[in-house]
Amino acid sequence: MIVVMKPGATGAQIANVTARIEQWGCRAHISEGQEHTIIGVIGNGRPLDREQLERMSGVARTVPILRPFKLASRDFHPQSTVVKIDGISVGGKQLVVMAGPCAVENREQLLEAARAVKEAGTHVLRGGAFKPRTSPYSFQGLGEEGLRILAEARKETGLPIVTEVMEPQMVPLVMMYADILQIGARNMQNYALLHAVGEAQRPVLLKRGMMSTVEELLMAAEYILSHGNERIILCERGIRTFEQYTRNTLDISAVPLLKQLSHLPVIVDPSHGTGKWELVEPLSRAAVAAGADGLLIEVHPHPEEALSDGAQSLKPSRFAQLMEGLRPVAEAVGRTL
Amino acid sequence: MIVVMKPGATGAQIANVTARIEQWGCRAHISEGQEHTIIGVIGNGRPLDREQLERMSGVARTVPILRPFKLASRDFHPQSTVVKIDGISVGGKQLVVMAGPCAVENREQLLEAARAVKEAGTHVLRGGAFKPRTSPYSFQGLGEEGLRILAEARKETGLPIVTEVMEPQMVPLVMMYADILQIGARNMQNYALLHAVGEAQRPVLLKRGMMSTVEELLMAAEYILSHGNERIILCERGIRTFEQYTRNTLDISAVPLLKQLSHLPVIVDPSHGTGKWELVEPLSRAAVAAGADGLLIEVHPHPEEALSDGAQSLKPSRFAQLMEGLRPVAEAVGRTL
Amino acid sequence: MIVVMKPGATGAQIANVTARIEQWGCRAHISEGQEHTIIGVIGNGRPLDREQLERMSGVARTVPILRPFKLASRDFHPQSTVVKIDGISVGGKQLVVMAGPCAVENREQLLEAARAVKEAGTHVLRGGAFKPRTSPYSFQGLGEEGLRILAEARKETGLPIVTEVMEPQMVPLVMMYADILQIGARNMQNYALLHAVGEAQRPVLLKRGMMSTVEELLMAAEYILSHGNERIILCERGIRTFEQYTRNTLDISAVPLLKQLSHLPVIVDPSHGTGKWELVEPLSRAAVAAGADGLLIEVHPHPEEALSDGAQSLKPSRFAQLMEGLRPVAEAVGRTL
Amino acid sequence: MIVVMKPGATGAQIANVTARIEQWGCRAHISEGQEHTIIGVIGNGRPLDREQLERMSGVARTVPILRPFKLASRDFHPQSTVVKIDGISVGGKQLVVMAGPCAVENREQLLEAARAVKEAGTHVLRGGAFKPRTSPYSFQGLGEEGLRILAEARKETGLPIVTEVMEPQMVPLVMMYADILQIGARNMQNYALLHAVGEAQRPVLLKRGMMSTVEELLMAAEYILSHGNERIILCERGIRTFEQYTRNTLDISAVPLLKQLSHLPVIVDPSHGTGKWELVEPLSRAAVAAGADGLLIEVHPHPEEALSDGAQSLKPSRFAQLMEGLRPVAEAVGRTL
Repeated sequence: MIVVMKPGATGAQIANVTARIEQWGCRAHISEGQEHTIIGVIGNGRPLDREQLERMSGVARTVPILRPFKLASRDFHPQSTVVKIDGISVGGKQLVVMAGPCAVENREQLLEAARAVKEAGTHVLRGGAFKPRTSPYSFQGLGEEGLRILAEARKETGLPIVTEVMEPQMVPLVMMYADILQIGARNMQNYALLHAVGEAQRPVLLKRGMMSTVEELLMAAEYILSHGNERIILCERGIRTFEQYTRNTLDISAVPLLKQLSHLPVIVDPSHGTGKWELVEPLSRAAVAAGADGLLIEVHPHPEEALSDGAQSLKPSRFAQLMEGLRPVAEAVGRTL
Repeated sequence: MIVVMKPGATGAQIANVTARIEQWGCRAHISEGQEHTIIGVIGNGRPLDREQLERMSGVARTVPILRPFKLASRDFHPQSTVVKIDGISVGGKQLVVMAGPCAVENREQLLEAARAVKEAGTHVLRGGAFKPRTSPYSFQGLGEEGLRILAEARKETGLPIVTEVMEPQMVPLVMMYADILQIGARNMQNYALLHAVGEAQRPVLLKRGMMSTVEELLMAAEYILSHGNERIILCERGIRTFEQYTRNTLDISAVPLLKQLSHLPVIVDPSHGTGKWELVEPLSRAAVAAGADGLLIEVHPHPEEALSDGAQSLKPSRFAQLMEGLRPVAEAVGRTL
Repeated sequence: MIVVMKPGATGAQIANVTARIEQWGCRAHISEGQEHTIIGVIGNGRPLDREQLERMSGVARTVPILRPFKLASRDFHPQSTVVKIDGISVGGKQLVVMAGPCAVENREQLLEAARAVKEAGTHVLRGGAFKPRTSPYSFQGLGEEGLRILAEARKETGLPIVTEVMEPQMVPLVMMYADILQIGARNMQNYALLHAVGEAQRPVLLKRGMMSTVEELLMAAEYILSHGNERIILCERGIRTFEQYTRNTLDISAVPLLKQLSHLPVIVDPSHGTGKWELVEPLSRAAVAAGADGLLIEVHPHPEEALSDGAQSLKPSRFAQLMEGLRPVAEAVGRTL
Repeated sequence: MIVVMKPGATGAQIANVTARIEQWGCRAHISEGQEHTIIGVIGNGRPLDREQLERMSGVARTVPILRPFKLASRDFHPQSTVVKIDGISVGGKQLVVMAGPCAVENREQLLEAARAVKEAGTHVLRGGAFKPRTSPYSFQGLGEEGLRILAEARKETGLPIVTEVMEPQMVPLVMMYADILQIGARNMQNYALLHAVGEAQRPVLLKRGMMSTVEELLMAAEYILSHGNERIILCERGIRTFEQYTRNTLDISAVPLLKQLSHLPVIVDPSHGTGKWELVEPLSRAAVAAGADGLLIEVHPHPEEALSDGAQSLKPSRFAQLMEGLRPVAEAVGRTL
């Protein structure tokens, strides 16, 4: 960390800051500029508290030098992590596509969707049993009944299941049915939940919050990693901006950026990322071309009857086309589908 | 709701949409424009599913007419709600100031802060026992020990306590100590938690998420109201924008807007809203001048030693000045402090 | 347009709104809902003034139905526009790559860059002679001298030139040297300048403002089109968001969205869009995979000595690699490079 | 400036960076941390080029220490600037209110508005003759005819005139009529225009761009100052965010922030800042309470017939009320109205 003193800071103020730094077991390195004195803090590996220094008199501001994440960082762990789930590897040469309806609505709908996505070459079945909805009057999911239907689909198709868990105390229940625990965008900073899945022995799909920075996403991963769970898949799903023609702005540049900063695999959700089914196919191609390790796509057998997010769901026939068109793009960037 | 058909939509497509609308027990009202046919949906009072209609063929888009919140809406409940807490009324002529440290750090710190804010004329003591922190390596709060210290401060000063609850299963514990349950910005859409405090018989301070629209804040209030708890205080605390000189952008216009749209009282947190103690006083005045029913302010006896958010905390002497300067502003807009 | 009346609007208020609508030569179509009366405005093809109606008493709000752009719209002009420049076609099967340094710094630098991008297969040479810079103390470009150097590079390499024009009265001068007139992001709503290039008989590269919606970009194109110039190339170059690890957030979803809404060709600038040279290659691939008609890329022979935007410029060798890697992606989506 | 080297940067890389710094006539101060070597650049007062260093091998990133504005900075010019216009002082104890219609529509409308705002106690008359409009089909202003009408209103009421200038070559014409030259939000980074008004001997009202940071606003002021014009009034008018219930988000915290960072006076435009007339009064109070030196308010004799921005204009009677209610707030913060 660097401490920038105000112009005209006194010797006593500089000495106080130095003393505080040394009290933390760090060394202070003073450098006098034309207008400002700058104090470099040479650390002992422990995180430092910028805010305390910022309140000391004579201090103009502080500037962090180290990234605040460690376990999630590629500097710390140069080799890419490959998350293994029941015979599937996320983060290897092979792309992994997770598809299915936004919400499990009933047995017929889910089984029809599961068969369709299986036939189109999907690797994992998605479907929500517990749904976070902005309105208390919207469909909130089937709950445990939804989980049982997912388990039946897995039995029939052999596809592993990814489904969302919304509360810490629900983790044991959801783990009975799910191969991958999904943390939704609204819960990316639900620390009690991150703690709970950090202690679970199950891969986690961690979605970026719609107004979270890349750094905050990696800090959320750091919470899970620091509780002992290393099987994390990051998911870019669009951020909130001023643009209104799309539901969110899918931040494709986050894909290569996350791959540089972190060793964790990264997938993309173009369905939530755009909110429009017409944009799902071109954005799926873009994500793969940018280096994503996989995709999370909403497919519904009858989108015009979906109980949630119908406007962004693909019909099975369109999804099959998407998979077909994706194959040459994957090959063009040295991946397989 | 209005359904806008695409230019050249066929009679069969229009008939299908009409049929779906009538199937929901609503009436369809068709109006043929030069380029588009528009179908008005005359409802039966139940919420409608825009996304289903948006996926029907021939439909260009849908436009909602009604606001999605009801119980929180002033149309539905024209009289302003006054939340009563232990002799204090939030939403009346008298402004309510809640002040104290970001986090309870130890007994001495909290009692010193409590005495100082009491002396300066504060009505409620704030202090966090459970702290949501971006980094797993930051101080996470004292937990139940913090709650016990808060209880001691209440006993000594007589000030009611507002403190954050972060998990549904913690609600019973926090209720044993807190007069007001605070839902933090990161948990504004933690629906399990909204459900839990909705069933609690305790006033709730609901902070706007840093990524949330005014409508989403009112929908979060709607969750709590729909579970039977009507004692809700809304809190504007800054939203995330591109501006970097302040930690967040405090949306003062949300104050009169929320007062127009809703009957619930509205307070403002200028400490988190700006992240800089120098801006807390002018923004406190601005909030009151704009019609806020109160303020939530961070005060720390020794901000340069604070374990969290020191850069935005006021010293007791500055806070006393702020209260002094606030009084004439309150009077200028017909309020008392 | 739809006018939503307030709950309880009186018959006289509704009659006033209806009268105003008819005064404009439109028809009003009244539909009474449970809570609101809705008035549909059936237009005469001319744009309507929502704000006037919004101020009439009893009106809650108005909702636009038609998109505000016409000449730029695909509804109006279903066939894709192909912009022809000196033997090159932008918007056809062949992708068009425009590359070169951010600023023309001197003869040697530009000629070296021009030869390198030519050899790597570029179709158009870019280079700024007039530079909009945030600071008055930064390099502002060589001016006309820069234009002359660009002309020399065109003579030597045969590559057409795209360069920025910043003021209406400079249009005649820049037209003497440039094959394509670039409107920079900061000038997207400089209406005097849009007017001037609208009257010029020269193709225009119109960059999206960093603060502009897709609709506003199309409205800026509408200005140029309405002054008679139909040879417009739209350019997505990143929007401003809260994310700080990248300079802007490149909105790749704008590519397929613009292609749906408009008939104009769309290219992408991944250099400004990310501000980091390491991200230029993956984002170039993503743009092409999403359907872009071309790319605008910064290449500098010695980026570490560049007078502007060095951090986002590629070395010639990296650019040649990028072009090589782009070819299979182009083919995977049915394009050639 | 601070240069942060990558972990493992070699001695040769560090030497290269040092050599480049010294080549610029600066000194390099090396400090070796546990993970990174940090190089402090001790400057010679001239601005440095971060981007060049960022492209050198071994460099992780650079961190600016000095603010990039000088002439606009309070560090450089501690005493507050008071801008004098024809007997009025902006930036003194007395608040300055500028009011009038968004656009001059005709002689009757403007004179009626001018008389009304004069009677209510306004100090300056506003009115647009040249209007930047998103749509080429919207009313673009009366042009020079509008300027002549403004001059007539000045003659009758004695109020000085503020009006927008949109093009560099129009500056001489507008100066013939206007006491204050307004630079609109869309032109805040129109550098040719900033240059032109910088050379004019006339006060400038500089509006913050809707997606500009506070730093960029001060850099725009720096352009004007560096061309010799010191009579600048800054104007906060709302920034673009994700919130949709208001047209923009008025950033009231920018007021005290700008007053800290700069010596220039700051006024607030709550009409554009919110886009809703109902919010203009509470936000006017908030701006004054936060320390603004004045207000810019839209008043139209018949807002429901306004040719632009009717939804945010006040009727004269409401404006008179606003002025009445503002007086005690001004007094509460030690100002007069």
